[in-house]
Amino acid sequence: MSHSRYVTGLRAVEQLLATPGTEIRKLYAEYQSANPRVQALILAANTRGIEIQPANRARLQQISGEVRHQGIVAEVKRSTVLDEASLRSLVEERLTSDEQSPLLLLVLGGVQDPHNLGACLRTADAAGVDAVVVPRHGAAGLSPTVSKVAAGAAETMPFATVANIGRVLSWLGEYGVRLVGTSDAGARSLFDADLSGPLALVMGGEHAGLRKKIMERCDLLVSLPMRGSVASLNVSVATGICLYEALRQRK
Amino acid sequence: MSHSRYVTGLRAVEQLLATPGTEIRKLYAEYQSANPRVQALILAANTRGIEIQPANRARLQQISGEVRHQGIVAEVKRSTVLDEASLRSLVEERLTSDEQSPLLLLVLGGVQDPHNLGACLRTADAAGVDAVVVPRHGAAGLSPTVSKVAAGAAETMPFATVANIGRVLSWLGEYGVRLVGTSDAGARSLFDADLSGPLALVMGGEHAGLRKKIMERCDLLVSLPMRGSVASLNVSVATGICLYEALRQRK
Repeated sequence: MSHSRYVTGLRAVEQLLATPGTEIRKLYAEYQSANPRVQALILAANTRGIEIQPANRARLQQISGEVRHQGIVAEVKRSTVLDEASLRSLVEERLTSDEQSPLLLLVLGGVQDPHNLGACLRTADAAGVDAVVVPRHGAAGLSPTVSKVAAGAAETMPFATVANIGRVLSWLGEYGVRLVGTSDAGARSLFDADLSGPLALVMGGEHAGLRKKIMERCDLLVSLPMRGSVASLNVSVATGICLYEALRQRK
Repeated sequence: MSHSRYVTGLRAVEQLLATPGTEIRKLYAEYQSANPRVQALILAANTRGIEIQPANRARLQQISGEVRHQGIVAEVKRSTVLDEASLRSLVEERLTSDEQSPLLLLVLGGVQDPHNLGACLRTADAAGVDAVVVPRHGAAGLSPTVSKVAAGAAETMPFATVANIGRVLSWLGEYGVRLVGTSDAGARSLFDADLSGPLALVMGGEHAGLRKKIMERCDLLVSLPMRGSVASLNVSVATGICLYEALRQRK
């Protein structure tokens, strides 16, 4: 998923410029436009120090994906911290877009350790995950330690904190997203599971694994082969193995 | 690889009992044996507090894999810390054994952080790795932190510290072990590489990756697909992804 989104049309861009705190990366504008509202937006953006890029109609159409751009498109930094509603918008947008690779979400059921959360974000970014979803309570959230371990991914990876993971899984299921949980009790090996379509990978916490209520919401539980004496893998390592198996199946 | 090895026959077991510090887990002995040397060994083992398990000829043959067991087999804890010569023995033994799964070694070129080494050991154990090989100098060695993070694997995973990784790769190559290194510069994706035969997976350190000299020794360099903004994965996560891809191809 791109780290930018595009806001198109006079009224939308006017609103955007009127909203304090919105981070507008660039304004694409039709300089030749005779419309005084376009000229006013260029002036306002210039006053706020926003980079302005002259663009003709064809280019504006290309950037925005819309014909009715009215001579103006703003590139906005996508907020990386999402609530449940923004997560839902992101998922809807993604499922209806013509992007080649299917949706890939990482749901962390209850990771406690900031190092593990950071490592999961780093791996999720590398694997092309669209968003990471965590519960608002009882789990690690973003922090300086997480940012450091995530090696840049904490600033770019969409990160949704939600009140109720079960409810999110429920509507994801309604959208046709396959919910695959990992569990020692998983009847099927990861390598025998189909991970090729729109997918939410659901991982448990460090100690208790997935809660029973979350497990029951999953379409499929998978386990990783364990050939030695240790009982489990580190959650960030297990996450990496599962995400890259999904990537392998999608290439 | 099993964490025990078996020493068979009168002379070998006598020598074993005479060697101070050898950890003998159990003595399997033919109680009905008329041979006074067998009786003497039972007595000596009993004196040292070693568990003695009566066994008939068929059982002794089964345990030792040998017909000429002379009524005595000792089960010895495999030392987990190996030098280059013991590593070589382990590899030779493994390549000539009739075990189903092919040899799998993990060579860590220069992991500095004990947390990463511990996580690599834990993952290596889970993936059924036969031994982990590290350089004696300029890399993390076993320590309490490593043990803690490894979740038990530091006590069971054969761990070889060697003076010269390049030399080890050289003789591994002569034994027909495929040397697969990971590198951003790897021409082939991990998922397009054949990891099904006897394999040494060679990983770089946290910062510099694989040294050029080590890279040149490898038969193949592979890279992991990177779909996001971060430049690399954590070494223990990358190790997990590579080892489990080998496991997937071998199942």
